[in-house]
Amino acid sequence: MAKQTKKIAIENDNTVIEGRNPVLEAFRSGKTVERVYVLDGCHDGPVQSIVREAKKQKCQLDFVAKERLDQMSPTGHHQGVIAKTAVYHYAEVEDMLAIARERGEDPFLILLDEIEDPHNLGAIIRTANQAGAHGVIIPKHRAVGLTATVARTSAGAIHYTPVAKVTNLSQTIENLKKEGIWFVCADMDGEVMYRQNLTGPIGLVIGNEGNGVSRLVKEKCDFTASIPMKGQIDSLNASVAAGILAYEIVRQRLQ
Amino acid sequence: MAKQTKKIAIENDNTVIEGRNPVLEAFRSGKTVERVYVLDGCHDGPVQSIVREAKKQKCQLDFVAKERLDQMSPTGHHQGVIAKTAVYHYAEVEDMLAIARERGEDPFLILLDEIEDPHNLGAIIRTANQAGAHGVIIPKHRAVGLTATVARTSAGAIHYTPVAKVTNLSQTIENLKKEGIWFVCADMDGEVMYRQNLTGPIGLVIGNEGNGVSRLVKEKCDFTASIPMKGQIDSLNASVAAGILAYEIVRQRLQ
Repeated sequence: MAKQTKKIAIENDNTVIEGRNPVLEAFRSGKTVERVYVLDGCHDGPVQSIVREAKKQKCQLDFVAKERLDQMSPTGHHQGVIAKTAVYHYAEVEDMLAIARERGEDPFLILLDEIEDPHNLGAIIRTANQAGAHGVIIPKHRAVGLTATVARTSAGAIHYTPVAKVTNLSQTIENLKKEGIWFVCADMDGEVMYRQNLTGPIGLVIGNEGNGVSRLVKEKCDFTASIPMKGQIDSLNASVAAGILAYEIVRQRLQ
Repeated sequence: MAKQTKKIAIENDNTVIEGRNPVLEAFRSGKTVERVYVLDGCHDGPVQSIVREAKKQKCQLDFVAKERLDQMSPTGHHQGVIAKTAVYHYAEVEDMLAIARERGEDPFLILLDEIEDPHNLGAIIRTANQAGAHGVIIPKHRAVGLTATVARTSAGAIHYTPVAKVTNLSQTIENLKKEGIWFVCADMDGEVMYRQNLTGPIGLVIGNEGNGVSRLVKEKCDFTASIPMKGQIDSLNASVAAGILAYEIVRQRLQ
């Protein structure tokens, strides 16, 4: 097998890594691989190792036709494997709790249930930073990750406010409840936020742009809070709603 | 002169009208012409009428080379004149005061000092609608207008919440002060918003994405209010900041 050089290119907001050894190396170096594309029907040793790693790390794995790989490939030498890695590193939820402890503050986390628009995610990370939240938690699937657009829209907040990616948001809420954190779900059917007690260790859950917070996640929350809506339309922009709720928490904490 | 048919195309978020008679017609029908491009050196009768109308209605007027017109022209038959009109109609500031009177509420206006990003303008119109504001006022120059992107991002709010375009924001503030409206300027140097009295007839002034509220406009305001910022970065996204301040007004009005 010929000696290979690592081929990297920034494409579609992600770092694209192609070729068998480079992709395996990406996994082994601890990089956050978000998605792996493998040539359909390709089963040799190195490819099997890659598939195994992808499954172990629970990243999205797609078996695709050669044309698709050719199209995505920056150099044309993909050898049947292309991986997309996050531009920024993810933190662990535990890191956020550590920051809160260090500052001597009650934990304040923002959990996003499947936010799809990178501008919204970026703006929410920016708000989290300014509101003094200790971190932002996003789900691994059906949500935008830390892409270059998110980084830009966060106006630098991505370098200061940790973002964690979890496999199962409901499970994460369950675990954090054991740490004494209360969860408030943003929902139009909830009690008006001004009448809720939002002080103490808190996790604010914001839903998807179109569908709001999913039923399973909502059921795990301790209470729901609403923003008073006087208008003729349905809802607020997700990042605006997150900002308004986050700052109601700030206000109550300041009093 | 050959009979002409009106040529209209949606391009770059605006409605493009080209040809001498169609552009003159647009002015005469009361359409909001945002910008007129005239072939440099062209001085015949119809063109002079168009230039006169453009100056009268204070819309932006540019004298450009033939190549530029050719490039903008959807059909190639521009006859030396192209106009861009707003996709949506603008309201008058007086309409907003009438709505407040009709509802028996203190006027609540949101004034935007040169917001440039259509997504921000759309999100702010959406927030204005939900917060029960009676209208949004934007300046004629150096700011985004009611484009198709703004309409989409407003999630329909553009159909309910009036938006007015004024030549001089400072002058508008002066005039509205005579109606008993107080103006609060969003500024990081201001007193924290929770400690301000934001009830009563109010105009909330939000600044440009990069530079905040301009000095001239700020000087006209009665007081400045800040959002507490705990983070390491500079500021919040403009539409998020507008949302947080607008809802502090809502909260104080509810109490």
